[in-house]
Amino acid sequence: MLISDELTREALRQAARALFISNPNPRVGCVLVDSDGTILGKGFTQQAGGPHAEVMALRDAATGGRDVRGATAYVTLEPCAHQGRTGPCSDALISAGIGRVVASIEDPNPLVAGQGFARLRAAGVAVEVGPGACESRELNIGFFSRMVRGVPWVRAKTAASLDGATALSNGASQWITSPAARADGHAWRARACAVLTGIGTVLDDNPRLDVRALQTPRQPHVVVVDSQLQTPPDAHLFIAERACYIYTAVQNDVKEAALQARGATVIHLPGPHGKVDLPAMLRDLAQRGMNELHVEAGHKLTGSLLREGLVDEMLVYLAPTLLGPGLSIANIGPFDNLAQGVAMDFTSVERVGADIRILAQIKGRATF
Amino acid sequence: MLISDELTREALRQAARALFISNPNPRVGCVLVDSDGTILGKGFTQQAGGPHAEVMALRDAATGGRDVRGATAYVTLEPCAHQGRTGPCSDALISAGIGRVVASIEDPNPLVAGQGFARLRAAGVAVEVGPGACESRELNIGFFSRMVRGVPWVRAKTAASLDGATALSNGASQWITSPAARADGHAWRARACAVLTGIGTVLDDNPRLDVRALQTPRQPHVVVVDSQLQTPPDAHLFIAERACYIYTAVQNDVKEAALQARGATVIHLPGPHGKVDLPAMLRDLAQRGMNELHVEAGHKLTGSLLREGLVDEMLVYLAPTLLGPGLSIANIGPFDNLAQGVAMDFTSVERVGADIRILAQIKGRATF
Repeated sequence: MLISDELTREALRQAARALFISNPNPRVGCVLVDSDGTILGKGFTQQAGGPHAEVMALRDAATGGRDVRGATAYVTLEPCAHQGRTGPCSDALISAGIGRVVASIEDPNPLVAGQGFARLRAAGVAVEVGPGACESRELNIGFFSRMVRGVPWVRAKTAASLDGATALSNGASQWITSPAARADGHAWRARACAVLTGIGTVLDDNPRLDVRALQTPRQPHVVVVDSQLQTPPDAHLFIAERACYIYTAVQNDVKEAALQARGATVIHLPGPHGKVDLPAMLRDLAQRGMNELHVEAGHKLTGSLLREGLVDEMLVYLAPTLLGPGLSIANIGPFDNLAQGVAMDFTSVERVGADIRILAQIKGRATF
Repeated sequence: MLISDELTREALRQAARALFISNPNPRVGCVLVDSDGTILGKGFTQQAGGPHAEVMALRDAATGGRDVRGATAYVTLEPCAHQGRTGPCSDALISAGIGRVVASIEDPNPLVAGQGFARLRAAGVAVEVGPGACESRELNIGFFSRMVRGVPWVRAKTAASLDGATALSNGASQWITSPAARADGHAWRARACAVLTGIGTVLDDNPRLDVRALQTPRQPHVVVVDSQLQTPPDAHLFIAERACYIYTAVQNDVKEAALQARGATVIHLPGPHGKVDLPAMLRDLAQRGMNELHVEAGHKLTGSLLREGLVDEMLVYLAPTLLGPGLSIANIGPFDNLAQGVAMDFTSVERVGADIRILAQIKGRATF
């Protein structure tokens, strides 16, 4: 017999299996158990348009011929109450005769926001909320950010030497970190809704910015901040299986047509000083369903995002080398006193191959 | 009953207790056990001039009235065979009737170097060598370095922001890291034979460079690289309980007399370009019994030591902040390609308070 905490953890493990899959839907897991604590079925959210976790768990039980009437459903997010591309999960649970729902956290989606729970209770289903709330929110930090703040969760990735150089002064940067760190970086791309870069990186490195180091059922979209619309139509980042959004501050119908011909969506969002309006861009990306935005940019764009207070989290790989003068992680400052620095909390520090991976959250950004 | 591996580990734990105490003698632990594996006595090396680990363990057994005749001694370094300030430990073990010695590693001291084992064997004591060899050598890396290479083990400590700034461009650097990291830094000072700094740090910060954040029976000595003999006689680093060595490239009898009056030893070791001959300084420090040299210097001296290939290990505290342009960890480079960087291996990565502590060994330096 599994106790309640273990069942919540199993539901969270199921949710985590949706990490590369369910975007832009939240990562949700569901476990159905009988009164003895025996698992009857489990599942997690599939690709957008596919079944949600609750339906997958019900199907799993049905496939095994296990009776779920009167069972308890452990689910990591409030079951939905609205008709999207799939039917409401709360109705599916009710129809199946589920007797009790233990949900980690209320769905921040204004189309749900408590209505799923209300629907369940109205049908006589007992509802408890809370176990695993922090973990579920953290796993879906981008979804919560989009729903609550109206902007994606912005995670800026960089790779540097131990003394902070992302490249030598002559631009040499391939490769500072090890293959293991680069593969790990691909996993962070894979979980994001989109990878964002700047025109400088496109012109200098001509990257693909796709996920190659691991299997994924979907490629993250790509976003380019390109004030002067300089993205070459033959850039490597035009890849069929994903969308490409180019934000620009200028109007140039010829260039725009050439980029559109490559499948890109060009969006005019001029801001001050001939640059793209970055806060407006983030709002626009949220409108387009972007939960987690994975930034892989040079020190200029990373610096601009930091200076405008738009970065939520730094993902930094440090290599075991000292490189002396070179390009920095982010073009910020100069500051007059230490208190002006970008204050963060280290939330994770791990060895990855020969390198170190550090997650650092900008102070105050996770409170929303 | 404790098995052999556990007894070696216990002897290593005893050795670790000598960390702040036994300098410049090695950190050695000893555990005496009877044939049932019952511990009869244990001990570790005391302050220089005091008893070694084996004698402490024999005394511990005697105090408890436990018979050690025929017992096995687990000891983390070859028992000494020479008369120093204390009598030879191998003789003490023989006199006590110890039947068997399990030693981690041969003493690299040319006055011992196998003679302790030979003496034991000649007296009919069974000797095994090997268990815990790596751990014992690592714990005594400075002693091994001094004995084998004739120079101290050089560990360069620095504290920086995540983007590698040790200070803002205006010099502001107090405090980038947290009190917990600074206290941890004092533990690394405490285990070193001496703390080394440069005249720039003395003039800019006037530091004491002593151990204050924790209890220690001895203060590490202090060493200043002071090419032009600019150390002010009223500098804070003149502290009674330790020696102060000032290495200079110039002859100035007046200044020298003033510094000697403060208890300093002034050593002339001119090298190229009016600077101190750093390799010669390290050899001289080894002659003076320095095992581990803890460098707390600015980017210039740390850079010089790195460029001359004299640093063995970096001890880097990274704070959760981004500071933009500022002073670097080490004044090295500029390099033309990444392979010219100072290649290292991360040997330890730990969270310390709000900060991260990284130990990185310069590649190839531990092989001697």
